[in-house]
Amino acid sequence: MVGAGQLARMTHQAAIALGQSLRILADSRDDGAAQVAADVVVGDYRALEDLRAFAHGCDVVTFDHEHVPNEHVAALAADGVAVHPGAGALRYAQDKQAMRQRLTDLGVPCPRWAPVADPAELAAFAELVGWPVVLKATRGGYDGKGVWVVEDLSAASEVLESRTPVFAEERVEIVRELAADVARSPFGQGAVWPVVETVQRNGICVQVIAPAPRLDPERAEQAQALALRLAAELDVTGVLAVELFETRGGLLVNELAMRPHNSAHWTIEGALTSQFEQHLRAVLDYPLGETRRLAPVVVMANLLGGPDDVVPKGIDERVHHLMARWPDVKIHLYGKQFRPGRKVGHVTVLGDDLQTVRRRATEAADYLMNGHRRDG
Amino acid sequence: MVGAGQLARMTHQAAIALGQSLRILADSRDDGAAQVAADVVVGDYRALEDLRAFAHGCDVVTFDHEHVPNEHVAALAADGVAVHPGAGALRYAQDKQAMRQRLTDLGVPCPRWAPVADPAELAAFAELVGWPVVLKATRGGYDGKGVWVVEDLSAASEVLESRTPVFAEERVEIVRELAADVARSPFGQGAVWPVVETVQRNGICVQVIAPAPRLDPERAEQAQALALRLAAELDVTGVLAVELFETRGGLLVNELAMRPHNSAHWTIEGALTSQFEQHLRAVLDYPLGETRRLAPVVVMANLLGGPDDVVPKGIDERVHHLMARWPDVKIHLYGKQFRPGRKVGHVTVLGDDLQTVRRRATEAADYLMNGHRRDG
Repeated sequence: MVGAGQLARMTHQAAIALGQSLRILADSRDDGAAQVAADVVVGDYRALEDLRAFAHGCDVVTFDHEHVPNEHVAALAADGVAVHPGAGALRYAQDKQAMRQRLTDLGVPCPRWAPVADPAELAAFAELVGWPVVLKATRGGYDGKGVWVVEDLSAASEVLESRTPVFAEERVEIVRELAADVARSPFGQGAVWPVVETVQRNGICVQVIAPAPRLDPERAEQAQALALRLAAELDVTGVLAVELFETRGGLLVNELAMRPHNSAHWTIEGALTSQFEQHLRAVLDYPLGETRRLAPVVVMANLLGGPDDVVPKGIDERVHHLMARWPDVKIHLYGKQFRPGRKVGHVTVLGDDLQTVRRRATEAADYLMNGHRRDG
Repeated sequence: MVGAGQLARMTHQAAIALGQSLRILADSRDDGAAQVAADVVVGDYRALEDLRAFAHGCDVVTFDHEHVPNEHVAALAADGVAVHPGAGALRYAQDKQAMRQRLTDLGVPCPRWAPVADPAELAAFAELVGWPVVLKATRGGYDGKGVWVVEDLSAASEVLESRTPVFAEERVEIVRELAADVARSPFGQGAVWPVVETVQRNGICVQVIAPAPRLDPERAEQAQALALRLAAELDVTGVLAVELFETRGGLLVNELAMRPHNSAHWTIEGALTSQFEQHLRAVLDYPLGETRRLAPVVVMANLLGGPDDVVPKGIDERVHHLMARWPDVKIHLYGKQFRPGRKVGHVTVLGDDLQTVRRRATEAADYLMNGHRRDG
């Protein structure tokens, strides 16, 4: 796996059970996955020679992030390396404008969008959809980064004058955000988990509720069918996360990710086959595992770094208190340095009652990060 | 963790979630846990200097097996190393005669037993309990090794004339074997999992059924209370597995293990807190996790190496077929070379109906090891 963040770290956990050993390409020995895996190569995922040296001897190469240059992914495949997902699919997780174009060609509902090379094109688009307009970097955005909501042309000028390639989207009236997570094997087998609600704060996912509460069953099925269709149309192998906007008019696709995804961390304890095991089964071309839920309600809450004074060392006492108070809360720490807003871990709670489970996950995450319970 | 077998391998998986990194003392880089962990020290667990070098910088030292000389465990503690479980407790997992003596002193029901230094003492004991008599090596036996059922004095002579220290036990009429698995923290907190049935074949555990079918609830509670009491009396920290004989007259203690144990592998998927996480929580002096079951019935079946011609390479095709046929079976492979009778992995099945779940686990394990389904 190229990349050594928490996704590689948790994939390694799943690999161990399957009798596999995950080789990891890390930026540094301190990376979350590099701390815990036996076979770590330190190198630069942007350098083809590093990728080639890393891939030598791997059965399959897969990814913990979408930042490997697409031409390098294609070059590895041309070398004869099995790469999953492949360059052709990854392109649509790397280039958001290419993704929008492809989805539009496929007739998949999306927010209205347009390429905008200059203020005149933006003005024309805003004429059509109304201000404010959302500008999105075609590449590299995540967790609210690379997204600008602009009220008018002058507010957009700074973004347009920067060298960041962007395109424009209408600002959609959102009821809530959902995610449909699926997996697909090279053989073409697909598997789905229940559609989840992803609760956002400041553009960052703070909580995931599985299954999405009060979601119309037809709409849920529609979301799953759409995700499976996209996985097949785009030739995705491994996990495909389809982030969705639920609007009054229906579902719109927001983003695609072709790797294990935050919206499915709940599957580690909450589903018979986790997204990490499933991703491995898929990219290794094993048959996929059954995904049934192991509790009526599962809630995952991200641990987002709080104020700077909360250092990893200090977390230990809080873990102690949390375990004493809530022995049923499952803790996952990623071995990362704490920085405000950074995802440093998550907690998962299983149960029968949505309100109880959700409150517990919220309180546990807030306690771990802030040392107190958040109101409301 | 001293020792790098499958128990260390699975403990490492659990450590990752807790933000910990398990340092492992391995005999070789090829050991199951050494294949997958970042921090591996190769050394001899029988050499105090190797143990000392290994322990340097560890928060806590714990064990994947009971073969570390007890005096070395005590020496580490005298150095100021936190060792869990400690030498005082471990003694009763290392020396079966000392265990029998201590349990007898505590008034815990055991098979009748006696030290036998010579044929005359054995004859006197057999006079009391009748032939056949069971001879047990005081140290080092496992999976049926170190246990001899002898029909008469002449059959016993070979064992008695060897230099292996043994003691004698009555041969008990067993209804079935059970295990009560618990954990205890240095703080004295205890946690229990349901009592399980351990199905044996030729002295080797082949299957574990959780909870033990049709077990009288009072008897189950009695077994759990006994295990918790023993953990406290012997000052065990970490997991304590109490292997029990169920007889018409009640429960008798067979063996003790003070580490994660085969009888609780089912807890990885089947309980909210697995034995591996719980062992870590206990030895690190964290509060213990909730142990509730995530399915009505959970069955674990060991993968015991079959004929020599089944090599690890060949297993891959079988894994493929197994996953295709039974997508709900959870597979665990230990990264070990296959040898007849050797535990090389296990499978776990969760479900509602005992017969269905048990049949599936049996068939899956037999298929993986033998390439066909066993009759009956």
